[in-house]
Amino acid sequence: MCKPTTQRQQQANPRMPARGVCLSSLATSKAHGEVSPYFDGWKEYDANPYHPTDNPSGIIQMGLAENQLSFDLLESWLLAHPKASICAEEGVSRFKEIALYQDYHGLPACRKAIAKFMEEVGGRKAMFEKDRIVLTAGATAAHEVLTFCLADPGEAFLVPTPYYPGFDRDLRWRTGVELIPVHCSSDNDFQITIPALEAAYQNARDRNIQVKGLLITNPSNPLGTTMDATALRKLLAFVSGKNIHLVCDEIYSGSVFSSPKFTSIAEILATDKTYQSERVHIIYSLSKDLGLPGFRVGVIYSYNDTVVTAARRMSSFSLVSPQTQHLLASMLSDMEFVRKYLAENSKRLQKRHEMFVSGLRLAGINCLNSNGALFCWVDLRHLLESHDQEGEIILWKIVLKEIGLNVSPGSSCHCSEFGWFRFCFANMTDQIVKESLDRIQLFMKSRRSNQLYDEGGAYQKKPLNADEASEEFNFTGRYSAIEVDNGSLRSMNVHSSGCLRLEEATRSEVPQQELKDGVY
Amino acid sequence: MCKPTTQRQQQANPRMPARGVCLSSLATSKAHGEVSPYFDGWKEYDANPYHPTDNPSGIIQMGLAENQLSFDLLESWLLAHPKASICAEEGVSRFKEIALYQDYHGLPACRKAIAKFMEEVGGRKAMFEKDRIVLTAGATAAHEVLTFCLADPGEAFLVPTPYYPGFDRDLRWRTGVELIPVHCSSDNDFQITIPALEAAYQNARDRNIQVKGLLITNPSNPLGTTMDATALRKLLAFVSGKNIHLVCDEIYSGSVFSSPKFTSIAEILATDKTYQSERVHIIYSLSKDLGLPGFRVGVIYSYNDTVVTAARRMSSFSLVSPQTQHLLASMLSDMEFVRKYLAENSKRLQKRHEMFVSGLRLAGINCLNSNGALFCWVDLRHLLESHDQEGEIILWKIVLKEIGLNVSPGSSCHCSEFGWFRFCFANMTDQIVKESLDRIQLFMKSRRSNQLYDEGGAYQKKPLNADEASEEFNFTGRYSAIEVDNGSLRSMNVHSSGCLRLEEATRSEVPQQELKDGVY
Repeated sequence: MCKPTTQRQQQANPRMPARGVCLSSLATSKAHGEVSPYFDGWKEYDANPYHPTDNPSGIIQMGLAENQLSFDLLESWLLAHPKASICAEEGVSRFKEIALYQDYHGLPACRKAIAKFMEEVGGRKAMFEKDRIVLTAGATAAHEVLTFCLADPGEAFLVPTPYYPGFDRDLRWRTGVELIPVHCSSDNDFQITIPALEAAYQNARDRNIQVKGLLITNPSNPLGTTMDATALRKLLAFVSGKNIHLVCDEIYSGSVFSSPKFTSIAEILATDKTYQSERVHIIYSLSKDLGLPGFRVGVIYSYNDTVVTAARRMSSFSLVSPQTQHLLASMLSDMEFVRKYLAENSKRLQKRHEMFVSGLRLAGINCLNSNGALFCWVDLRHLLESHDQEGEIILWKIVLKEIGLNVSPGSSCHCSEFGWFRFCFANMTDQIVKESLDRIQLFMKSRRSNQLYDEGGAYQKKPLNADEASEEFNFTGRYSAIEVDNGSLRSMNVHSSGCLRLEEATRSEVPQQELKDGVY
Repeated sequence: MCKPTTQRQQQANPRMPARGVCLSSLATSKAHGEVSPYFDGWKEYDANPYHPTDNPSGIIQMGLAENQLSFDLLESWLLAHPKASICAEEGVSRFKEIALYQDYHGLPACRKAIAKFMEEVGGRKAMFEKDRIVLTAGATAAHEVLTFCLADPGEAFLVPTPYYPGFDRDLRWRTGVELIPVHCSSDNDFQITIPALEAAYQNARDRNIQVKGLLITNPSNPLGTTMDATALRKLLAFVSGKNIHLVCDEIYSGSVFSSPKFTSIAEILATDKTYQSERVHIIYSLSKDLGLPGFRVGVIYSYNDTVVTAARRMSSFSLVSPQTQHLLASMLSDMEFVRKYLAENSKRLQKRHEMFVSGLRLAGINCLNSNGALFCWVDLRHLLESHDQEGEIILWKIVLKEIGLNVSPGSSCHCSEFGWFRFCFANMTDQIVKESLDRIQLFMKSRRSNQLYDEGGAYQKKPLNADEASEEFNFTGRYSAIEVDNGSLRSMNVHSSGCLRLEEATRSEVPQQELKDGVY
């Protein structure tokens, strides 16, 4: 509490000595949601980033859902279209007009091109009106603006778990809105069920919290799975019944690489007019599908006129540079390029996904079956020391500090089952993926050699002394190897060449119990 | 209030018929601050914008504080530095790196270049640390982010009047913070006095409102005047005494074109270490001084470490496209260009200011003496029918609809004296300035011919019938002339050529009383 200075104090010394000046609760609280392993892992990575030659024992960033697979396509287009840049000789005649533009409606040509792009991504099953598109500086801002439009402080959204850790910051921090987890489980591949929704809704009502909407990601972040029309219809019926909003985050919709195809909520609304569309809002972005996170282009597409108006006004606080809008308007209105890009990017993602998943499988690790996005939902439950959050965080630290991979633990995604991790695979070269798989495979071999399985398939440590451990783990060292000492894990930097004495572990050696549990 | 559907209702029809879904108070209230003549005038302009050939009777936009005088300098630089654009052949090698960048710290090179630019603008009297610079998508967002950091809902900032109308939206809307006007008057050229600050502070205390800071614009928007070191020291003493924040909006600091020179609050802090800098925060932008409002580059420069950290986190919602950051980093680190630009831009602003002010003077209209920014604070008190808000709005509508100029009435800036208007002069060509002056001069002539002065210098209408009025106002019509009928003003579109029968009014004809009142 900032008490004003008395008149006497002020007269005595008009400049007043040091006394803390008060800030807002927001500035001083921890509610920004960045206190999480999800963000901690990023800091570790930033302090020690892997580089093939400069820092080969550094941490590989697998916590970043970024697509670096198709930049050559974008660059080729840019070189062929210099007029798209207002800073190049060919396009500079439009510099003044674009540099002056500041209307919060966004450049009409850009909104039109993005609407067309969204139609293309959705397989041309639904139309998008350019006048319903509100542009914001990234999906982060789009989510916050939409939340400001839909809910008052203290009101809540239901969010199926596991969910993107950033939501805790983006939707809650400045809006004062709550997120209520809807618990999903591996029993049905983490699909959202009506009983789970009802339970979460009831839980909120019991706590006297007003639920304003349901937020889903489709394709799911972190699962990488898509929802089919039947599932979407069930959700529409649920939100209609409760008279609440449905927010569909579809920022990975153009990154679906194998069947089933992506189904947008827009497609359901286009084919079945009985649903009230005014409660439905889509979040989109060019960060993932076009691989341009730096450009900060987020989209709110709302079927509710009042939301469009209010969100557009709020976008004053979060405008996309028209320099960037102008470039994107040119690029995305080239439909031949757009189709070629989406098809080729999808192929490359599929290839990368297959490479990563099969590499994990070789190491005895399985993932949830997925068909889209830039990550896998990896099942490491069989590696847990204890099936609780503590056990998961211990394992996460091992993955981070010993294997040298920054991944996101399921608990940071509010997953109610421990031992699942999100591994991103598209923000790196093939060489770095191979490096990460080498590390994982080596780690798993070392685990197997040092540990016995109990009857349930969980590991029991095989106690080794330090000498035995270091003898067994000599190899051409590129990273910290695992040394087992008195049952605890600690790092050992191996810089000399040598050979790994372990027998080559094959898939058949993995206990059947583990394989069965691992296929989700 | 959104009541949930009962179970029976839902079972009867799972899709439920149309029933309004609830939005937030923000989305449905009028608190966004856009219900103001300031914004209404923009809408009128948008519906009927002046164009020399296509729409010569349209409205001239003089409500937009934009600098279009120095684009040729920017364009020349761009053409000479193609590498600054990641989309040109010369710079495309950095496309991937920039397009991927999404860290909310902003590109270090960009922050460094902006810090140097701010130093240059401040006459190199104070240093700016790049690590205290938080980038946001425009000054609009910078103000909101800073407000979120400094105050909780219901708390308040003191703001001297007249103030920029956008503050009502930017600082209040989503933050829930109040603005308390500090009334300044023409008696001392609208300078901020300690008694006025004390009165506003006490007024807030009496209403049990916690005052968290004082917000000033220096150079002032809408006055175009700067504050000297003595005035700034007084404000520092005041905020120290109250233990509140001082927010200095310096977005026009590089647009000071005549003496006295601009003095930044940073200069005071640099020269006198007895003030607590942690309560001081500067808002800056490249929209005005570099004429790039479309690029959306706002800056929070805070001397308070906690504010820097919190604001940087909040900037996630309002990031500047790194495409734009990269370009600006290149441009603003070219110090030779920066110095040349600032000097030349200042000269051009001075010339334009002189042209506009002397044109007004010829028409018998005076302005507050000013030395910076992109507008004049114009004294039209002698044209008011009544010295109240209604009188001002009537006159504003005449200026908008009859003269065809969109300007900002003082009441939209919370000015407590009626009859002052902000006229922007830098967002157009010389030809359009002349057109606006022609219109104003013609309007003033028509006023003088139709009206008698009362003893106090205020106008009294000279009753004319419609025939007389239309006869007197034949001229080469480019806009609606004023027709006086039964004492009320209404428009008359004149499309035919003719001659103005009025005698040429000279300055000596203006009553002395008016001249005396008009010099502020």
